[in-house]
Amino acid sequence: MATFTPPAADAVRARLLLAARDEFAAVGLASARTERIGAAAASNKAQLFHYFGSKEGLFDALVTRTVTETLAEVPLDVDDLPGWAGRLHDAAVARPWMPRLLTWHRLERATEVPLPAILTRDADLVAAVEHAQRAGVLPRSYRPAVLLGLVMHLAVFWSTTSAEFDPLVQAVTAPRRRQVVVDAVRSLLGT
Amino acid sequence: MATFTPPAADAVRARLLLAARDEFAAVGLASARTERIGAAAASNKAQLFHYFGSKEGLFDALVTRTVTETLAEVPLDVDDLPGWAGRLHDAAVARPWMPRLLTWHRLERATEVPLPAILTRDADLVAAVEHAQRAGVLPRSYRPAVLLGLVMHLAVFWSTTSAEFDPLVQAVTAPRRRQVVVDAVRSLLGT
Repeated sequence: MATFTPPAADAVRARLLLAARDEFAAVGLASARTERIGAAAASNKAQLFHYFGSKEGLFDALVTRTVTETLAEVPLDVDDLPGWAGRLHDAAVARPWMPRLLTWHRLERATEVPLPAILTRDADLVAAVEHAQRAGVLPRSYRPAVLLGLVMHLAVFWSTTSAEFDPLVQAVTAPRRRQVVVDAVRSLLGT
Repeated sequence: MATFTPPAADAVRARLLLAARDEFAAVGLASARTERIGAAAASNKAQLFHYFGSKEGLFDALVTRTVTETLAEVPLDVDDLPGWAGRLHDAAVARPWMPRLLTWHRLERATEVPLPAILTRDADLVAAVEHAQRAGVLPRSYRPAVLLGLVMHLAVFWSTTSAEFDPLVQAVTAPRRRQVVVDAVRSLLGT
């Protein structure tokens, strides 16, 4: 019985994305070195350019993939936005590179053409929130996109503390941090 | 009658900080070029190193100054946290480099020693919130540092949208954006 073996090309591509994740999360797009990513992936710069076209192409592919994977793992639940925010928080804690990558993307790619897959995904999420608002499942106190944005913003709260703020909250336990996110979204909804 | 003329050294220092603000806000610490900052300040790299010791020294001085100035302009008001958040939002909109600088600081200096002036300032703000909670002016649903952190996080909400999210909220007017921040903090306080 034959077992499926992924083609070698896919394996190289996957290793490059994994190495890129660590490099980009650590230093961002501009400071990242394609030589370093190639070496860490047991590949090289030529293969990296072959698969992704450029350092920017690799970064964009990685950001798209990170958002897509996260949303696949933690699908939007309009019936329980506080719970969804809690699960997004869990995902950000388990994958610290995720909020960092998205922040580098925001800082370094602000004036670029939006990434199509994320644009579509965001529009779908907003449509789902709008539908739930019309159905009376969610309050209409904020526009759909604003409500969604606020919930996602609160979900990553604990990924945005600074070296100066960390000492002030170091006594806050992991379960309590999660509860803060859930409670904050709950109060936003007025529930 | 003599008018006060600042010493030339202070003028150079001020010009370097201004040029550094634009350079660091645009590209962050690692990608910033001290030659470019020196030239933009009608100064040079040698003077920059004389006043600030290093590129990192200049960055830290600028971040400290940005936080200090912002808090001097928009002092904490425990009797009206929603209004305070609205004013912080105004400051972030009027000075788009401010939230960007603080985000670069968070991403690029996370593992550095905390900046003493910001550490002290944060501790003072937390103490004021704690005092207000004890006095019954603020709800005790969150620890003082967590409540303060959430309020500041919501205040900069509109500075954290991405190229993909921007099109979905472009119809939201400036006064409405401000109101979203004020309302979100109000619901956090349960008022």
